Amino acid sequence: MLSEFDLIAQFFTRSRRQHRNVALGIGDDCALVTPAAGMQLAISTDMLVEGRHFFPGADPQMLGHKCLAVNLSDLAAMGAKPLAFTLALALPEARPDWLAPFAKGLLALADEHGCELIGGDTTKGPLNICITVFGEVPPGQALRRDAAQAGDDIWISGSLGDARLALAGYRGDIMLDDATQHTAGERMHAPTPRVELGLSLRDIAHAAIDISDGLAGDLGHILERSRTGAILDVDQLPAGPMLARHALEIRRRFTLAGGDDYELCFTAPSGKRDAVIAAASSCNTAVTRVGSIDAAPGLRLRDANGAPLDLPLASFDHFASP
Amino acid sequence: MLSEFDLIAQFFTRSRRQHRNVALGIGDDCALVTPAAGMQLAISTDMLVEGRHFFPGADPQMLGHKCLAVNLSDLAAMGAKPLAFTLALALPEARPDWLAPFAKGLLALADEHGCELIGGDTTKGPLNICITVFGEVPPGQALRRDAAQAGDDIWISGSLGDARLALAGYRGDIMLDDATQHTAGERMHAPTPRVELGLSLRDIAHAAIDISDGLAGDLGHILERSRTGAILDVDQLPAGPMLARHALEIRRRFTLAGGDDYELCFTAPSGKRDAVIAAASSCNTAVTRVGSIDAAPGLRLRDANGAPLDLPLASFDHFASP
Repeated sequence: MLSEFDLIAQFFTRSRRQHRNVALGIGDDCALVTPAAGMQLAISTDMLVEGRHFFPGADPQMLGHKCLAVNLSDLAAMGAKPLAFTLALALPEARPDWLAPFAKGLLALADEHGCELIGGDTTKGPLNICITVFGEVPPGQALRRDAAQAGDDIWISGSLGDARLALAGYRGDIMLDDATQHTAGERMHAPTPRVELGLSLRDIAHAAIDISDGLAGDLGHILERSRTGAILDVDQLPAGPMLARHALEIRRRFTLAGGDDYELCFTAPSGKRDAVIAAASSCNTAVTRVGSIDAAPGLRLRDANGAPLDLPLASFDHFASP
Repeated sequence: MLSEFDLIAQFFTRSRRQHRNVALGIGDDCALVTPAAGMQLAISTDMLVEGRHFFPGADPQMLGHKCLAVNLSDLAAMGAKPLAFTLALALPEARPDWLAPFAKGLLALADEHGCELIGGDTTKGPLNICITVFGEVPPGQALRRDAAQAGDDIWISGSLGDARLALAGYRGDIMLDDATQHTAGERMHAPTPRVELGLSLRDIAHAAIDISDGLAGDLGHILERSRTGAILDVDQLPAGPMLARHALEIRRRFTLAGGDDYELCFTAPSGKRDAVIAAASSCNTAVTRVGSIDAAPGLRLRDANGAPLDLPLASFDHFASP
């Protein structure tokens, strides 16, 4: 006798060919994966909770996309090639009109990156989505947080702060017109993981991290683990197109400590500037040089004139309601 | 600035040497694992929700044990050797008096099996624990659900039904004295994953599954995927020591459809009976032969005299409150 929750699996069942590395997918006690010879496996897990990481009633198709996107973003930040993922899902009730679009958004992004759903678990409970993702990276080529070196440039992919602007709009902290709210909202709800960029930076970059909690805090993790400091040119930070229309103070705050950007922050030797630009160009991703790593401890901020800036910063805090 | 939830990580940080296969553990975007050359990776994920899989206010140390045990049980059922796991944890609040014993129970079992915590995620939210576990198995040696063959014996490890008896006691369906409730409750709250037995059966058994939802339903998964049927000698089923004192009807029902047993049900050629017994003996685990696989479809039940039994069965249903 199949229960309602057993039937959920049908929404995630694919007919197409399995990934060459997947020897056994959904339906047994475990999935079986055969890693390519000599490759390391990169593994990351993220849990998204309703009311904390996304709004109650969030669009299920964008939510499906986002749950996998934030995990793929972790692979991107290691320079790992996506391979497979597991999905554990707690749902208050098994509603087809929620499950179908959720699976659609999730699996469309999975297909885009050749990342196969190999197992999972579904249960009744407060809405909670936990994905664990697996990727491959050649030994020694992973972009680790502890690999930044004094003299490295600091680079940012894409743009920052539009997701944070959308949040400010939803909260009523900043009044946004409908079109701006919608466009910024898509940036918040359906981020683009920079997987291709991460792969193309393997032989070029030293350290990398994905910006999920805000640039200042996430760059801080690189500095801490690499035992280095940095100077950041705050007014060089690439503001998102919606945020770019706002005042300097808002731009600085949201690019530095916005959260939910899912861009890459990476460091690379200054002798590799052309290589960085060529790599980014090859995957149609903008990159901006925004500072440099040095030996002096701490993160020091500079304005457009090179003068020190003292800004109160706080990363995105999971205690605060979204 | 570390938030309360960042600090949670401290409860799970180990000082001891990392597993030889773990190149990078907690603290980067991903963990890096180097699988042993030529081995397949077995992967399973389980999500446990308060009020569904365990009682509100459950003892945190036993809960930490159980969350990993149910995942290790999936590895056991594939004949895979535990390697590492990730932990994602949603908590209503970060209380040290809950986290310390939870981590203690979790990591004690992890140490026992050489299974290293390599990454995780913590967030505020309704209590939810999601573990993804990784093990190694030589290609072609995994104990799959689809590998049972007509003529195979059906075997059960350990004993069945004491966890279900404990549940009946908690619910007030059956009156249990305190000592019985306590002993049966330990079986429910702190199951023993049959990892060693799974490993020792690699070259002997055909199919295997772990009994989490009740024997009849879980054996049904083997029959379905192997396209076989089976005869089960219901009165041969090894009742747990607490359950064994109860009436025949209760014994039959709780051994057949109890749930939360976390024993292995496996099939092996009848010519390998001595090998099965020797393998079980080598890891100090009792095994009982309880039936046989055949080509006729369906699961047919027999009593002690060999007469057909018609019992209404329902596996553990995650819709029902525990």
